Amino acid sequence: MSAFTAEFIGTMLLILLGNGVVANVVLHGTKGSNGGWIVITTGWALSVFAGVVIAAPYSGAHLNPAVTLALALIGKFSWGQVGPYMAAQLLGAMMGALLVWLLYKPHFDATENPASQRAVFCTDPAIRHRFSNTFSEALGTFVLIFVIFYFTNPELGEQKTPIGMGSLGAIPVAFLVWAIGLSLGGTTGYAINPARDLGPRIIHAVMPMKNKCHSDWSYAWVPVVGPVAGAAVASLLYMLLKS
Amino acid sequence: MSAFTAEFIGTMLLILLGNGVVANVVLHGTKGSNGGWIVITTGWALSVFAGVVIAAPYSGAHLNPAVTLALALIGKFSWGQVGPYMAAQLLGAMMGALLVWLLYKPHFDATENPASQRAVFCTDPAIRHRFSNTFSEALGTFVLIFVIFYFTNPELGEQKTPIGMGSLGAIPVAFLVWAIGLSLGGTTGYAINPARDLGPRIIHAVMPMKNKCHSDWSYAWVPVVGPVAGAAVASLLYMLLKS
Amino acid sequence: MSAFTAEFIGTMLLILLGNGVVANVVLHGTKGSNGGWIVITTGWALSVFAGVVIAAPYSGAHLNPAVTLALALIGKFSWGQVGPYMAAQLLGAMMGALLVWLLYKPHFDATENPASQRAVFCTDPAIRHRFSNTFSEALGTFVLIFVIFYFTNPELGEQKTPIGMGSLGAIPVAFLVWAIGLSLGGTTGYAINPARDLGPRIIHAVMPMKNKCHSDWSYAWVPVVGPVAGAAVASLLYMLLKS
Amino acid sequence: MSAFTAEFIGTMLLILLGNGVVANVVLHGTKGSNGGWIVITTGWALSVFAGVVIAAPYSGAHLNPAVTLALALIGKFSWGQVGPYMAAQLLGAMMGALLVWLLYKPHFDATENPASQRAVFCTDPAIRHRFSNTFSEALGTFVLIFVIFYFTNPELGEQKTPIGMGSLGAIPVAFLVWAIGLSLGGTTGYAINPARDLGPRIIHAVMPMKNKCHSDWSYAWVPVVGPVAGAAVASLLYMLLKS
Repeated sequence: MSAFTAEFIGTMLLILLGNGVVANVVLHGTKGSNGGWIVITTGWALSVFAGVVIAAPYSGAHLNPAVTLALALIGKFSWGQVGPYMAAQLLGAMMGALLVWLLYKPHFDATENPASQRAVFCTDPAIRHRFSNTFSEALGTFVLIFVIFYFTNPELGEQKTPIGMGSLGAIPVAFLVWAIGLSLGGTTGYAINPARDLGPRIIHAVMPMKNKCHSDWSYAWVPVVGPVAGAAVASLLYMLLKS
Repeated sequence: MSAFTAEFIGTMLLILLGNGVVANVVLHGTKGSNGGWIVITTGWALSVFAGVVIAAPYSGAHLNPAVTLALALIGKFSWGQVGPYMAAQLLGAMMGALLVWLLYKPHFDATENPASQRAVFCTDPAIRHRFSNTFSEALGTFVLIFVIFYFTNPELGEQKTPIGMGSLGAIPVAFLVWAIGLSLGGTTGYAINPARDLGPRIIHAVMPMKNKCHSDWSYAWVPVVGPVAGAAVASLLYMLLKS
Repeated sequence: MSAFTAEFIGTMLLILLGNGVVANVVLHGTKGSNGGWIVITTGWALSVFAGVVIAAPYSGAHLNPAVTLALALIGKFSWGQVGPYMAAQLLGAMMGALLVWLLYKPHFDATENPASQRAVFCTDPAIRHRFSNTFSEALGTFVLIFVIFYFTNPELGEQKTPIGMGSLGAIPVAFLVWAIGLSLGGTTGYAINPARDLGPRIIHAVMPMKNKCHSDWSYAWVPVVGPVAGAAVASLLYMLLKS
Repeated sequence: MSAFTAEFIGTMLLILLGNGVVANVVLHGTKGSNGGWIVITTGWALSVFAGVVIAAPYSGAHLNPAVTLALALIGKFSWGQVGPYMAAQLLGAMMGALLVWLLYKPHFDATENPASQRAVFCTDPAIRHRFSNTFSEALGTFVLIFVIFYFTNPELGEQKTPIGMGSLGAIPVAFLVWAIGLSLGGTTGYAINPARDLGPRIIHAVMPMKNKCHSDWSYAWVPVVGPVAGAAVASLLYMLLKS
């Protein structure tokens, strides 16, 4: 599997399972309807687990443009590959969202609230506040990337892929995303990944749905700019602490 | 323990614990009554854990005809053993369902809704839709099997049993099933395993129960055909990516 | 630390944390009041984790007379030590229950329902049925002990203590108890351990409490006889499969 | 990274994520509003995971003055470093609480109940009772520290950092804190760490908030004295058992 394919499939799985759990909780008539925040956050954590298991040996399992950017900023990833990685992530996220749409089609049709339908695809802040929402996405992404940097085993002197201990090696990043969701996700719903929000938002805009509303494009820059800023700050702090 | 015995006992445990958690949540008067989707999905994930711990060293812990089929399709399992494995899985699933019936007998009697009784045994779609339900079972099984293929540690160049790190090695498949349940299980209740649905459905049809209704045989082909299709697509994609 | 001390302290921790989570969920005015079955079962699973971490290197972390009996039956534990181990477990369970009583004293006083008070100490079946309740305790204990037998890493050819991988080695038994609680605990509340039920029941009988009711001694034999029977069947089946 | 920086950043992350999950559950209008005890305790457990992952290789990841004190008492940590470690922990906790305040600012403003606002920062007993609350904090801290002592792998004859197996090595302490929260946290909300309570309480006193009430300084000594006492008892018992 090429790195491009790995990022595509890994991000597809991430979004299929991640947006899938949102569909299960917010759409009408599903088995997990109103399952609550514990269901959503556990589902997202394990989505990361599944995506990382697949992609780690082939691409390092970034699955997130903010991670790719951060690794390039600290000199652990070639700038020349940043473009292809991000493209694969965005396309994978779109494919994952398409599968969720197909999977939960009867439940989309049964859901009268168009905001619930849209929530399956892209994030929506609990309280809309431009600065606060951007800060929220930046802070969540900062925690994600800063801690990932320290998944390195320092005795070995170099970055290990999370797959170091077989598939168990994907657990720390899943637990980290679980933590971020439970603790920091209460404001904007923790995109913490530009591809995770933008890809599915495009699918929401394009696909037919009963009762569909607009795709809230005026908010779409927040879960892109916030994570990019968070990644930059995490990289900067990491470089400062290392020097 | 022979491979046949391991598949029988492992699948029995899987269904005893898996259908057991459904009984605990949906039957009347149990301690876990109305425990919600987090209880159901966590219970099923850990059922897989227990079944895999027992069977992995002896049979590779398929516990699922779709897994057996997929491993045969990609050439990692002998076609001659497919029949005996599937038979052991179906019989084990029946035995597991029988134990659940015996264990929760007083609660089956106290439950007036026959659909709740049946839900302990076999899956029932949230919205009945032949194509969508089959797609749902196929997609869930695809994710299960495709990710399991990548539990392989690529540096070693060959399939490792999930038990590679002692019993901790059974955690990844449990977490994967947790993810599938939380995220993709909202439509049909994720059989993702023909034996898991068919075996207990036979037990439902046979055993006496107060207020019992029919065993919904018209739906019974969906959780068989869907998983078989998902297994085939996962195997095909894996072979394509490997070549 | 001697094996006796390890069993005493390990079981004390098991009961302090295990009965503690019940107190948190069922008593009046606690932070976890009405937290539900997921809180109870997760709490018990992690109680086992903590107890096993402490005791495993010194005593093998039985923490349960049924486990001690089973290991003796299959010839992996000296009959001469069975008595001291069981005494340590019972005393540890009593000490743990005493600490729970002291810890939650203001909440015991604030709880008007005496059955809720008693539920903190000892199990109480959801539907009282002598045969069914005993079968339930036997089946839960059977699953516990039978799977523990297979925590053995077969390539090594001999029983490993659960602590083989450092403290992570205590996770499998915690996950197993989590599974049993979620899936099989809905009928009797899964004592699956004679010391866990009898020790705290003695403390309930002895300690003063506002609104205290009787200690339900007529049921007390079930969570002793059931687990002993389950341990015996698990041992027998294990020996049969091994021979 | 120096040990001081590691303790500062690790404790900052611990409080950002830990107090963050409280904010998500108790403040008005968040995504995790009323998520329940399972959300709170899982969030705190994973907060510990994240903090320990970062700090373990550089400072041993105490993140808690009670842990620092206990390690000094048993002779595994230099008394000369106790002051700097505790200062770093307190400052880190204040910084973490400040970030939570900034992150959830719109939700603090939307929350009318000042006790809910304050609960995001510092603990508040379910039933106010000087002795019982102090005992509760002492007992929770005792369990934390006593079990951490036994994370030592005894065959190696010396304390291992929790990071021994890469980032997976941070799981045992996270699971232990999960257990303590679920089981013993129902009375006082388990500070079990003087810095965790005092640092955020100072931030609550200082920062502006709509509807803000007093910072309950009359209770502030309990989550300091209790953990110190628990640490002392755990250290004493450990030394006794070792001798």
